[in-house]
Parts: sequence; C-alpha cells; structure tokens
Amino acid sequence: MRDPQPTDSADDALDSLEPDVFARNCTSRPVLQNVASRWGILALAALLEGPYRFNALRRRVDGVSERMLSQTLQTLERDGLVHREAHHTIPPHVEYTLTPLGTRVAEKIRDLIHILEGNMDTVRAAQAAYHRE
Amino acid sequence: MRDPQPTDSADDALDSLEPDVFARNCTSRPVLQNVASRWGILALAALLEGPYRFNALRRRVDGVSERMLSQTLQTLERDGLVHREAHHTIPPHVEYTLTPLGTRVAEKIRDLIHILEGNMDTVRAAQAAYHRE
Repeated sequence: MRDPQPTDSADDALDSLEPDVFARNCTSRPVLQNVASRWGILALAALLEGPYRFNALRRRVDGVSERMLSQTLQTLERDGLVHREAHHTIPPHVEYTLTPLGTRVAEKIRDLIHILEGNMDTVRAAQAAYHRE
Repeated sequence: MRDPQPTDSADDALDSLEPDVFARNCTSRPVLQNVASRWGILALAALLEGPYRFNALRRRVDGVSERMLSQTLQTLERDGLVHREAHHTIPPHVEYTLTPLGTRVAEKIRDLIHILEGNMDTVRAAQAAYHRE
C-alpha cells in the first residue's frame, strides 16, 4: 500500500536505500554470500586465529585448491574484510590479516561454528530421525 | 609427529573425534555449509522473525524459487535446525519454525547480517579502492 503524502513518499524512498539482504538486488546480498561462501566462511574463521601466509592458510582450510583460495581471498579483500600485505623480503611473502570489519564478521562466524561443532550430537540425532521417517 | 605412548595415542584418537569444520571430512562441515548456503542463511534469518508458512517465507526470501526453498527447508529440517509442522486445517497448511539449536544458529546469522548491512559504506569504499588499483 502506498501513501500519497509527499513526506511519507520521501521516507519510503529513504527506507529503500537502507541495505537489506532480503531484497533481491541489494548490494549487501552478494557481500553476505561471499562471506558465507564454501571457502570464504572457513578462511575468515581461520584468519581470526591470526595472520596467515597463503600456503599456511591453504593447509588450515583443508581441501581448498590454490585457485579457489586465491579467488576467495581476492573477493574478501575487495569487500574490505581481508587485508593483503606483500613483504619485500628474500624470498618475498604475502600475509593475510582481517580488517576491523572482517574481525567483527569473523567473530560471528566463529561463534556459529562453535555452536554447530558443539551440537553435532543433536544434528546427528535429527538426521537419523529424519531418515527413519 | 606421532607419540608412541599408548595413553597419548588414545588421547589423539579421542581428539580426532571432536567435530572440526576445518577438517575436510568432518561431518560438521556440510552442516555449516547448509547453514551458510545461498538460501539457507536467509531462510534461517527470516525464521528468527517468527513462524512462516511456505509462501510467506518465499516472499520474504526475495528471489528464491519454490524448488530451491523447498530443498533448503528439507535440508535444514534434516539437520535439526528447522521444524516443519503440518496443520490439518481446511485448507491444510504447513508452518516452519526454528528449533532451539536453529534459533541459536540464526541469532549469529542475524548479528552477522546486521554488521554487514550497517557497514556497507565501508564495504563500498573498499570495493571502489580495490577497483582503482
């Protein structure tokens, strides 16, 4: 229902500019989906443990390919969640850390992971019950 | 490095039974990925607002197809995060709610979404800087 009053219409227009992941075309939705992606979510959680070089992070995020981890880190860097620092040492190396925003996001991911890891008995019981039905 | 002492080996074996999403074959990893899936994450966040019937949930999770929402809800139900209740009314209807575990998970997702939605200026600035480089 639309309100014909000009002031309320202006409010509606402002409201529609608020980021809302539930809105199909909101720019916040792809950011959420990069964060929650198969490897993004694990890379963020790992980086909460501290800075990682690429190969060490690849070992930590067990199963990720070099190409997928590289793509994932580029996306997280572009969205301002991960900082990439090239050190001009011999040999040169690149270190990845979380930005302040990345840290806040990763803390929620870590909490979510801990809840799931700590309740796998409940999950497994639900799965068994579901398949018995 | 493996410790040859029997007691320590027993400890190692117990440790390896702890759920760990970083381990490639841990059963907790697919559960995390169902939770963090494209539509799973939005369905869980929506259900934190209260119970939803299928069609209302489909409208809330803007852009999801009937088939994808149905598959997503089945997966979340199987993992014990969503409860599906068929009401034998005329016409019959089905209502979805979060389980206690689903609620705990969805709260973390809501927090994560609020952080992203509230910091889209930072994200957009990072995106603009990345593309200028």
